[in-house]
Amino acid sequence: MEKKILLTHCSDAPGLISKITNICYKHQLNIVHNSEFVDYASGHFFMRTELEGYFNDTTFLADLDQALPTRAKRSLVGSGRKKVVILVTKEAHCLGDILMKTYDGSLDVDIAAVVGNYDKLQNLTEKFDIPYHCVSHDNLTREEHEEKLLEVIDAYQADYIVLAKYMRVLTPTFVEKYQHRIINIHHSFLPAFIGAKPYQQAYDRGVKIIGATAHFVTNDLDEGPIIKQDVIPVDHTFSAADMAQAGRDVEKSVLSKALTKVVNDHVFVYGNKTVIL
Amino acid sequence: MEKKILLTHCSDAPGLISKITNICYKHQLNIVHNSEFVDYASGHFFMRTELEGYFNDTTFLADLDQALPTRAKRSLVGSGRKKVVILVTKEAHCLGDILMKTYDGSLDVDIAAVVGNYDKLQNLTEKFDIPYHCVSHDNLTREEHEEKLLEVIDAYQADYIVLAKYMRVLTPTFVEKYQHRIINIHHSFLPAFIGAKPYQQAYDRGVKIIGATAHFVTNDLDEGPIIKQDVIPVDHTFSAADMAQAGRDVEKSVLSKALTKVVNDHVFVYGNKTVIL
Amino acid sequence: MEKKILLTHCSDAPGLISKITNICYKHQLNIVHNSEFVDYASGHFFMRTELEGYFNDTTFLADLDQALPTRAKRSLVGSGRKKVVILVTKEAHCLGDILMKTYDGSLDVDIAAVVGNYDKLQNLTEKFDIPYHCVSHDNLTREEHEEKLLEVIDAYQADYIVLAKYMRVLTPTFVEKYQHRIINIHHSFLPAFIGAKPYQQAYDRGVKIIGATAHFVTNDLDEGPIIKQDVIPVDHTFSAADMAQAGRDVEKSVLSKALTKVVNDHVFVYGNKTVIL
Amino acid sequence: MEKKILLTHCSDAPGLISKITNICYKHQLNIVHNSEFVDYASGHFFMRTELEGYFNDTTFLADLDQALPTRAKRSLVGSGRKKVVILVTKEAHCLGDILMKTYDGSLDVDIAAVVGNYDKLQNLTEKFDIPYHCVSHDNLTREEHEEKLLEVIDAYQADYIVLAKYMRVLTPTFVEKYQHRIINIHHSFLPAFIGAKPYQQAYDRGVKIIGATAHFVTNDLDEGPIIKQDVIPVDHTFSAADMAQAGRDVEKSVLSKALTKVVNDHVFVYGNKTVIL
Repeated sequence: MEKKILLTHCSDAPGLISKITNICYKHQLNIVHNSEFVDYASGHFFMRTELEGYFNDTTFLADLDQALPTRAKRSLVGSGRKKVVILVTKEAHCLGDILMKTYDGSLDVDIAAVVGNYDKLQNLTEKFDIPYHCVSHDNLTREEHEEKLLEVIDAYQADYIVLAKYMRVLTPTFVEKYQHRIINIHHSFLPAFIGAKPYQQAYDRGVKIIGATAHFVTNDLDEGPIIKQDVIPVDHTFSAADMAQAGRDVEKSVLSKALTKVVNDHVFVYGNKTVIL
Repeated sequence: MEKKILLTHCSDAPGLISKITNICYKHQLNIVHNSEFVDYASGHFFMRTELEGYFNDTTFLADLDQALPTRAKRSLVGSGRKKVVILVTKEAHCLGDILMKTYDGSLDVDIAAVVGNYDKLQNLTEKFDIPYHCVSHDNLTREEHEEKLLEVIDAYQADYIVLAKYMRVLTPTFVEKYQHRIINIHHSFLPAFIGAKPYQQAYDRGVKIIGATAHFVTNDLDEGPIIKQDVIPVDHTFSAADMAQAGRDVEKSVLSKALTKVVNDHVFVYGNKTVIL
Repeated sequence: MEKKILLTHCSDAPGLISKITNICYKHQLNIVHNSEFVDYASGHFFMRTELEGYFNDTTFLADLDQALPTRAKRSLVGSGRKKVVILVTKEAHCLGDILMKTYDGSLDVDIAAVVGNYDKLQNLTEKFDIPYHCVSHDNLTREEHEEKLLEVIDAYQADYIVLAKYMRVLTPTFVEKYQHRIINIHHSFLPAFIGAKPYQQAYDRGVKIIGATAHFVTNDLDEGPIIKQDVIPVDHTFSAADMAQAGRDVEKSVLSKALTKVVNDHVFVYGNKTVIL
Repeated sequence: MEKKILLTHCSDAPGLISKITNICYKHQLNIVHNSEFVDYASGHFFMRTELEGYFNDTTFLADLDQALPTRAKRSLVGSGRKKVVILVTKEAHCLGDILMKTYDGSLDVDIAAVVGNYDKLQNLTEKFDIPYHCVSHDNLTREEHEEKLLEVIDAYQADYIVLAKYMRVLTPTFVEKYQHRIINIHHSFLPAFIGAKPYQQAYDRGVKIIGATAHFVTNDLDEGPIIKQDVIPVDHTFSAADMAQAGRDVEKSVLSKALTKVVNDHVFVYGNKTVIL
């Protein structure tokens, strides 16, 4: 007996749930969990189905393709751990949280490698016996640097790339290569305080809440589909530095929660939004 | 075109989703929203299906009964507002919150009447042009008092009875008559601080959080299926009275949220638990 | 025995707490509660002191003025309920929440009157035996309309004006007249989604949280000192209308909490920020 | 210039704040931050004062003792990092969280050593170059085991002992030796679900929230002064194992927050409660 997850999305039509679940039934695949959503604004259908049984992927998918509307997207995902490569710069909090949650079993992912443009986090990474690659950007154009990055990253054939406070902007080439597979943590409750020194901005504005946003990376900086957002309360006693610390706490928590949803195949990207089933 | 909600639960079996959605499809009922859950510990299946179309209830339910396991429970609920009777004693906060949320449209329910064992809340109730019945318990046995209560309540043929800080214990006769249809707000984060003076208990214990619990009433006092729980932070500056005020805030919020779930047919009762789809 | 609250703020200097508390001691005023804050970035000192005893305001304040730096601001506030006038347009949720919290005693304020530019909320207001004034803006310039508003409002000599979803922009004349005494609830987690249709904006952006902000009104639209902010989680199942409903829930909760802080003299305004002691 | 923290608590009396701040002023110690609380129920006074200047501890404390009521408790604490010893059994989540927060700088404490009754967490501890001592309880009476534990622990002269899921009950001898210096994380929202298998209990009860409680250890099992509590929402989809995982998340978060308050001298213990200033 195997466990697999069927992800389907297509334009909505009558009887889709019935058609899909019929085919599962016909293939003697037991539905362990099913959740679906129809976005009536766009008339789009989304379904996530956890299946258990003996799979013949080819015939199963063939039957599905016959039943589903043309241009329907469906994928059958094995239940193995997802492989991720983590990009970092100098800040330890997000990387450390992912490393520790993976170590203690609360995050079920395979960290293939950590890649940084400085060596500051090499020691932390290697504590957990994970390869660290320092790819400095010194004296390199953005393009040259990314070429070197991609050489390292591509070799791991990662399912996802996690930007755990990686402080450089990626080029369209890079982003397109890993479309909807790059997860970034943004130091703010988007769309507020976009840009530099967000905590100084927040401090100057006298806000009472600090937020963070995890999103997929697109070529519109900070505008990609949002996966998870959360906030943490602050008050007048917080300096800009205190707000930054509060921000780090919520950043790592939001990134871990988003990553958990993504690597367990709960997240659909549709247009510039996510549907999380 | 009508909208109805199909609620199904029965022992789990292969192909249930497919069977049910097929029948909806066959009757040309469009599935607006569907959510299901299988409790593997008990091997029980739950499904909530929002349907749209032209209903022939008799033939539709007949087809379902044929497809479903024997002893399956299914009901087809119209989309009309549920009718509730609210029982109170002297405290205004929960009643007031329900009245105002109903008035401003954030709670979609029909308050048929408010019944109290004192007249203290008559004025508040009548502000909203809702009938108030004062059924005093003076010089009456519990049984005599409940007889008079039931005379009043039964006349309204309410779908649900809400105990909005009604401070008397109901007899098994009453509870059985409205099985799984009586919703109570408990002044505590069950199972902590059961019994009298919960806020004094909480104060004496020096807790840092005050909670509240909305649950269906059974004959095991405070032990019925939990619908909703929430908490509110407190600290050393809170007197027992301050904790009681914090408690009132969380009580009314929890009761309103639970009531919203119940009157929109999201709540299944199974054993001593709820499944909320 | 009386209770009063002493509010002091001035540029920081050594021994301020000692000087102030000495004078209280000398006047045999018992300190029931004291809290202070020094903003080191601006070198400014804030202190809130709850006092109990027999007050001779003149000599007490004279002693304080001698002890405090020049240009120090201090006020001695009686413990009576604050008088507020509430401005509204058509939405009931914030007004209703304030009315009910005042009725059930969880908000300790005197609602002198409700003033609206439509009559839609007259019925709700009068349920609570509070005068309602409809001051329509039809065929009036902004200035003419505000003149009529101020005629009504000024007559009540309110301590604070609450904009409970009042949908018109106030002129500098109005704002200056009630400087730091006008509280607005903003339909967004400032500084995100400033401007019109915030919930449509939020929906289009696919946010996972909806926020609200209560702030004092200044002449920079939506830029006044923030008193309270909070958020409520949303997800892909929320339509723009659902997000608006979630927004209304957090709006009324944030406005009530901010108002509670303000009318109990916990809020200092300094520059464009608040210090809440 | 040094920074120190003055902690004072005694029975309440008029002018205490003034007396204490006067003495600070006289000694030319600048008050960086001051917060006080009077518990009117017990007539007890608490004050935490952050001071900056050149300290002559002996004369300063002598002046204080003269000014304060007899039996007043006062201590002048240096601003150095507190030294803690962490006791563990087999679960990694709380230890891992403290190690990582200390590593990334968000928790400012000196972890002198980790002591376990198994060697399971030795590898994790040593990743961070912290000594690990395995003190097995095999074939030892509770008293014999604790003697060996204390030999190891006492050597480090720790300020606090943290029970990071240490699963053995401590004897009165141990507890008295480190009175109000042992912090435990309890796998529940006390006083609910005391005892074994709390998550199975919570699952069977069908709760909608899972909590955790950090408290000082006294000889009344799970009854010591509560420092911090928090909860995490759960629902019908959570198995007992899922609830346990949710519990681990809230356990580590609550323990870290409590520890932060304690090691930064914000926590007074009074009777069986804490006052956190």
